[in-house]
Amino acid sequence: MTGPNLLIIGAGGVGDVVANKAVQFRDRFGTITWSARTAEKLAAKAAKVNARYGATEGKPFITTEAVDARDSAAVKKLIESTGASIVLNVASPYCNEAILHACLETGAKYLDTALAEHEFTIDIPPNWYERIEWPLRPEFKAKGVTALLGMGFDPGVVNIFCAWARKHHLDQIDSIDIIDVNAGNHGKYFATNFDPDVNLREVTEEVITWDEGEWKFIPHHSVWQDVTLPIVGEQRVYSMGHDELQSLAVNFPDTPRISFWMGFGEHYMKVLEVLDTLGLTSSVPVEVDGAMVAPNRLVKALLPDPASLAENYMGKIVIGVDVRGRKDGEDKRLFIWSTLDHKENYEEVGAQSISYSTGVPVMTAALLMADGTWDPKTMVNVEEMDPDPFLALMPDVGCPWQADELPTDDTWPYAEGQSASASAPLSAQKAATDRGAT
Amino acid sequence: MTGPNLLIIGAGGVGDVVANKAVQFRDRFGTITWSARTAEKLAAKAAKVNARYGATEGKPFITTEAVDARDSAAVKKLIESTGASIVLNVASPYCNEAILHACLETGAKYLDTALAEHEFTIDIPPNWYERIEWPLRPEFKAKGVTALLGMGFDPGVVNIFCAWARKHHLDQIDSIDIIDVNAGNHGKYFATNFDPDVNLREVTEEVITWDEGEWKFIPHHSVWQDVTLPIVGEQRVYSMGHDELQSLAVNFPDTPRISFWMGFGEHYMKVLEVLDTLGLTSSVPVEVDGAMVAPNRLVKALLPDPASLAENYMGKIVIGVDVRGRKDGEDKRLFIWSTLDHKENYEEVGAQSISYSTGVPVMTAALLMADGTWDPKTMVNVEEMDPDPFLALMPDVGCPWQADELPTDDTWPYAEGQSASASAPLSAQKAATDRGAT
Repeated sequence: MTGPNLLIIGAGGVGDVVANKAVQFRDRFGTITWSARTAEKLAAKAAKVNARYGATEGKPFITTEAVDARDSAAVKKLIESTGASIVLNVASPYCNEAILHACLETGAKYLDTALAEHEFTIDIPPNWYERIEWPLRPEFKAKGVTALLGMGFDPGVVNIFCAWARKHHLDQIDSIDIIDVNAGNHGKYFATNFDPDVNLREVTEEVITWDEGEWKFIPHHSVWQDVTLPIVGEQRVYSMGHDELQSLAVNFPDTPRISFWMGFGEHYMKVLEVLDTLGLTSSVPVEVDGAMVAPNRLVKALLPDPASLAENYMGKIVIGVDVRGRKDGEDKRLFIWSTLDHKENYEEVGAQSISYSTGVPVMTAALLMADGTWDPKTMVNVEEMDPDPFLALMPDVGCPWQADELPTDDTWPYAEGQSASASAPLSAQKAATDRGAT
Repeated sequence: MTGPNLLIIGAGGVGDVVANKAVQFRDRFGTITWSARTAEKLAAKAAKVNARYGATEGKPFITTEAVDARDSAAVKKLIESTGASIVLNVASPYCNEAILHACLETGAKYLDTALAEHEFTIDIPPNWYERIEWPLRPEFKAKGVTALLGMGFDPGVVNIFCAWARKHHLDQIDSIDIIDVNAGNHGKYFATNFDPDVNLREVTEEVITWDEGEWKFIPHHSVWQDVTLPIVGEQRVYSMGHDELQSLAVNFPDTPRISFWMGFGEHYMKVLEVLDTLGLTSSVPVEVDGAMVAPNRLVKALLPDPASLAENYMGKIVIGVDVRGRKDGEDKRLFIWSTLDHKENYEEVGAQSISYSTGVPVMTAALLMADGTWDPKTMVNVEEMDPDPFLALMPDVGCPWQADELPTDDTWPYAEGQSASASAPLSAQKAATDRGAT
């Protein structure tokens, strides 16, 4: 117990992953505290984690504290009382602003996995980070406080894949296509893999994409392509706005086109069309029998709890970046990607791969902060950091990755169920196994 | 102005039709009063109706009174103050119970077009009329007060078609299939033709049908058939529970099978599947951010106002009964039906055909009550009355009807756009035109 004290805020699916991973790597931290709004639910979850890794009665690996994470003063108090020097925020994005301020005031290092949000707001104009995060950057810099923004998989690892391609493989990047496909099946009629109101807003907002060096706006799901990915094969993916475009457009100023693509099946699209066309995905409250009700909050109340999906989730996810550009005057194209298996992840930590793929990266970054490898002493987006130590460590924390050189003629060399491209991978890192669960 | 004073309660689409028709036939009534909850909206509607038929300033054909029709005492007061002896209830079915009681107390004749309902109740067991209406029958009878239940098209005219077939054409009725097809197009993504929460409940309830002389329960939309109707051609219609089955099963005790079928297009079925599977058609409140919200009430708040559809509604409706049985020992099958055109009806009274086909029959019955032709001095369902005067008068009020003898081999002799069957119709009554609008 010689490392820094860690405070985890948030006990959804990603919180479950992070709590498990923190305990797996408990030798790198001092105390590990897990906090969330509801004390009882949290205590039960922590008891499960402690039991999984063989903590003895009265000597838990992870302890719990209830906190309202939208109350900055309460978070500050908790940071002080736990002596946390790293705050890992995996709570609702509605809490980000309060936690950021608490870290700024206490000097604790801050990590999150998604952009700060305010409730009942939609179609925020770019740059999204200029609304809440980046205006605080001068203060973080002046005080020398570290804040690492968007350290999940996407945003997060995909940004790091881009930084890695730029550092090692390309002189000039002409286009970045981030591709996120969940080919898993949760067996429910319809469900979202994380907070429904955040998720439904994300998939139904006007799409903001970076094209010819400027922001373009297109209707959601109006632009798609069919890609053939490793493992999951042919998939239809739709252009969507996403956090990482906002920071990559700034941090990759020479790259004229950056797009994010997400896979959606026909059934999902059908349900979404109905919900969206009828106004049921809207976060703008309407009057119902005299009360104001946000339609997406009602839909959230009716949909399955995302955490409940994990147990029966089957199949795999593939998330990667298709990066095109030039090296020594020649066209060059890379696909850098990871795959995870819902069932495997559930068996290890009780969460599905969408949560796992978000939790493992932010824990990887926390480990790099714990040993001082990453410590920018200001606010940064993750592509501003050196990608090498992160990509070297992430497989050990649980997430493999691989980089393949792809044909420059727009074709895909993969087939369903196969991970090998026609050529040998530039880099392939398997995930470490045996995390020490008893 | 020598007839009885008339009180119309309700100012939705059906109310619009009834108000227009009452003014068209104003020589049969004394005063005509139109009441609804919202005074201003109602006054504007009445001004339009008065203007349409050339009422002069200060001498309106129809006057208005605001009333909360769920408040029985308020309705009673209104009946007394207007001196109404006929109360035509086309308000929400949630109001029926209060209006029934007000009529019972004042002795005013009562007519409605649909079963009384309570909010937030679903899947009522048969017999539906035994819940609110029929328990009041002994009191209506004892006091000699007339109440005519379910006097729209379906329930209503279809029941009368059955009574007419029994009276004139069949010794024994083996089966009754009521078929309701709206082949119109309102041009909206999704909308209901009347109150969304009543409509969505109706189409998603467990189906109660009369089969082999007893009630059978089947999942909604689980049984369908393809029929070929006059005018609208081939249509897929689905078995549904409906008010008229409840009374016909009692009043046609020798008929072993009575079913109701409604046409639904593929797109409608898709949207309904999504809403229903996700629980959005439910009237059972769920907790949303601490408040209790009935999902169907939110959906209602988001859907187009049914009254707003009329203006752009194109196409026709066909509603009829396929009655099979025996006459003089021979198999015999009749199809007795009406058709209306959305655009024609809108041009006449500012409402589409779903409303028109409900409003014209109840006004026809009110006229039969005004001249004393129909006056049972107790509570009845419409099939208990002599069908002949009704069917003779209805075309003059605006709704044509036709009876065809059909092949007994289950085939349909019609084709799209045609109203003639292979054989000459048994009876064909055209609608009267020129209703005296200026």
